[in-house]
Amino acid sequence: MEKAEIGLIGLGVMGANLALNIAEKGHRIAVWNRTTETTHAFAADAGPLAERIIPCETLAELVTAIRPPRPLILMVPAGAAVDQQIKALRPLLSVDDILIDAGNANFRDTMRRFEELEGTGLSFIGMGVSGGEEGARHGPSIMVGGSAQSWLRLKHILVAIAARHDDEPCVAHLGPNGAGHFVKTIHNGIEYADMQMIAEIYGILRDGAGLQTPEMARLFETWNKGRLESYLVEITAKVLAATDPETQAPVVDIILDRAGQKGTGRWSAIEAQRAGVAATAIEAAVAARSLSALKQEREAAEAAYGLPAPAFAKADKRRIVDDLELALFAGKIAAYAQGFAVMEAASREFAWGTPLATVARIWRAGCIIRSQFLGAIAEIYDEGPVANLLVAPRFVEAMTEAHPALRRAVARAAEAGIPVPALSSALAYFDTYRTARGTANLIQAQRDFFGAHGFERIDADGAHHGPWQAV
Amino acid sequence: MEKAEIGLIGLGVMGANLALNIAEKGHRIAVWNRTTETTHAFAADAGPLAERIIPCETLAELVTAIRPPRPLILMVPAGAAVDQQIKALRPLLSVDDILIDAGNANFRDTMRRFEELEGTGLSFIGMGVSGGEEGARHGPSIMVGGSAQSWLRLKHILVAIAARHDDEPCVAHLGPNGAGHFVKTIHNGIEYADMQMIAEIYGILRDGAGLQTPEMARLFETWNKGRLESYLVEITAKVLAATDPETQAPVVDIILDRAGQKGTGRWSAIEAQRAGVAATAIEAAVAARSLSALKQEREAAEAAYGLPAPAFAKADKRRIVDDLELALFAGKIAAYAQGFAVMEAASREFAWGTPLATVARIWRAGCIIRSQFLGAIAEIYDEGPVANLLVAPRFVEAMTEAHPALRRAVARAAEAGIPVPALSSALAYFDTYRTARGTANLIQAQRDFFGAHGFERIDADGAHHGPWQAV
Repeated sequence: MEKAEIGLIGLGVMGANLALNIAEKGHRIAVWNRTTETTHAFAADAGPLAERIIPCETLAELVTAIRPPRPLILMVPAGAAVDQQIKALRPLLSVDDILIDAGNANFRDTMRRFEELEGTGLSFIGMGVSGGEEGARHGPSIMVGGSAQSWLRLKHILVAIAARHDDEPCVAHLGPNGAGHFVKTIHNGIEYADMQMIAEIYGILRDGAGLQTPEMARLFETWNKGRLESYLVEITAKVLAATDPETQAPVVDIILDRAGQKGTGRWSAIEAQRAGVAATAIEAAVAARSLSALKQEREAAEAAYGLPAPAFAKADKRRIVDDLELALFAGKIAAYAQGFAVMEAASREFAWGTPLATVARIWRAGCIIRSQFLGAIAEIYDEGPVANLLVAPRFVEAMTEAHPALRRAVARAAEAGIPVPALSSALAYFDTYRTARGTANLIQAQRDFFGAHGFERIDADGAHHGPWQAV
Repeated sequence: MEKAEIGLIGLGVMGANLALNIAEKGHRIAVWNRTTETTHAFAADAGPLAERIIPCETLAELVTAIRPPRPLILMVPAGAAVDQQIKALRPLLSVDDILIDAGNANFRDTMRRFEELEGTGLSFIGMGVSGGEEGARHGPSIMVGGSAQSWLRLKHILVAIAARHDDEPCVAHLGPNGAGHFVKTIHNGIEYADMQMIAEIYGILRDGAGLQTPEMARLFETWNKGRLESYLVEITAKVLAATDPETQAPVVDIILDRAGQKGTGRWSAIEAQRAGVAATAIEAAVAARSLSALKQEREAAEAAYGLPAPAFAKADKRRIVDDLELALFAGKIAAYAQGFAVMEAASREFAWGTPLATVARIWRAGCIIRSQFLGAIAEIYDEGPVANLLVAPRFVEAMTEAHPALRRAVARAAEAGIPVPALSSALAYFDTYRTARGTANLIQAQRDFFGAHGFERIDADGAHHGPWQAV
């Protein structure tokens, strides 16, 4: 039997779809799943693609079925399962085989695995795959971390299966070791912020402006034709338009307001803190999900405080709604500026040399945060490094137009008692960043007062202390 | 020569002051510093206290000078120095000796050191000490983590040197292993939020209301007599009142607006994320310090965007200033609610049984965030557990009075372009927490749409999916 070009372990939703994608692009693939029935069912359901799929019952069979040097994708749950799988495979593999972890690994685990496999002759790749089920099947965005050599050996397959934007494949080598999984983590962090800001706009429309759900659907649909064009705005319009077959109510109205999370948002926030980079819109989004889980506590709190203040005055409603497109856009610019700043800091710290223009480019299709907006970011970084996306000339222009609307939206929501944690964090980030003379002078004075930490003066070099004993 | 009751390693500012405090309270203490001259200089400068101080030139001499079982305080820089010191000491110590790390350790290091010393016969204590130089000398707030047995052996000395509030010593055993250092970390996280919110109020007064610095000093002095009474508000009044001898300008005006940080704020934020607890006001405060460090970038951004929008209309000024006392109070309640929620979650996760009433009580004096306000928190927890401080009846009453002012302050600042990251995060936290029906239903709809994550319904149990194919 003709050997496979590549192998894949783990036929869950993502693994199965990725395997079908690979087979469809003409690559013979050997697959194995812990449960043998799953393996056979997968091959049986593969239709005409089955001829390029080799279902294997044991790991040894799997390894034998792949032509050396063997690329082997692991699509198993992140964490201990990956380590167990690597351990089980090591005695079976040969020098130059490449293990590819395509799960949502924490990049620190990926860094450790690179170290552990150092000197074994095996190569390792940490590969972020975004796009959900649909993306895996028909073209995900793929973020590769590993050696240039491993990347070159896999490139033809990954280019074939990746999403395409204007015929450019959405896959790239983003640096050694943990770079791919790191970028995927920050992708998800930005996704959290994007989704949360959309949810806050929805809250203003629902609880402040009193729009009906179908009206909101139309609004998002319209916005999706303009500067907000993006997959998330597109599907927001769709989910808002959907009707529950049981109750005939809008589906969103029958969904409980308790959101789950799987950890990558939290990791983004932790890594931003470790890097010392402000990522408050992402942090606010993660916090909002945590608070959403406390449904009973929130009900008790509403009972204690009463319903929030009344909604907007009727005369204001139209004006407020008119502000929201630009407000969301301004919030989005700030949130992306934070995410890219975190990636830049990590790339510097770990000497990854991650090409930020390329990151933006491979996010233009296949992944959840895909949008035209990312094309603008790619063009900014193509022109050279910027201290922060907020000062790139085209975003200065966009923000100059948009921030007054964000300001008004945050102010109106604050007055009306509508929570806008991510939007207000984005605004505060912008206002802090664009203020040359901030208020940290007071903090330095306090720190020197109680801890003799010293401060810098505006008119002289060196460390100074205040005349506090004289106070 | 009579042996010492206790030893201390590391005669930096904190160590030296703590040693003098111990000697002053009648306890004989042996001291050692890496630099022998420092040790002798310390003893020579100790005045009448020198008779209770035994300066030692070697570690062996130090250990011999202490009566077994020996309590030995390490006051060396957090991190590798602590591990090195422990390693150097181990061959010299005997069973039942107690090593006390009194530095600002990351509690995860403390947890590891407990494990490493397990079975050696040595005891270990992780002890948070707050209050800066002055506190160490005359009475700090002391947060003890370790076995009950070790605590009982040290208690008489720690009670003697701790700060006192209404004659109650500000020291307590807060749980095993890392509990003391954890609580100290969160103390510092809250301190970051407290200081940042004060700085934001200062920014509104300076850039929005156009107050002169001496006027602000008087305002904080007045506030310090009311509900905001606290050490930080007290010293804010003092630093605002201080004049630079060189320029005769207010000192704060000649201090550069670039604040430092030593890591405990960041650790608080990271631990909050790990625990899945919203701590956005602390995160915003840490981010504000990071952004303050980017002075040149902020100058470039201001050049790109121009100065923020004009300040408040003259007619509004008085009203806005009148709001700020309650606004700061409301922000403070929310920030403390976050900090205490993080401690509660960690105490549960690590099975520390940390008594939150006691934590609040030992923070009432000696430490940087000391205030009457903490007495209220202690009384709340004395009455039993609460889901969140925000729903404790006395805080419901306080917040009901205060949140409208916070709302107006955040709205006015947002409109005027004055950054209020921590205050707006505190408001958004409150508004999210007090809203029974949030907007996470939309997020769950999106997640189900692109990732088939499923959602809960408001009218039925179990996991459900939307009719998205029909959209």
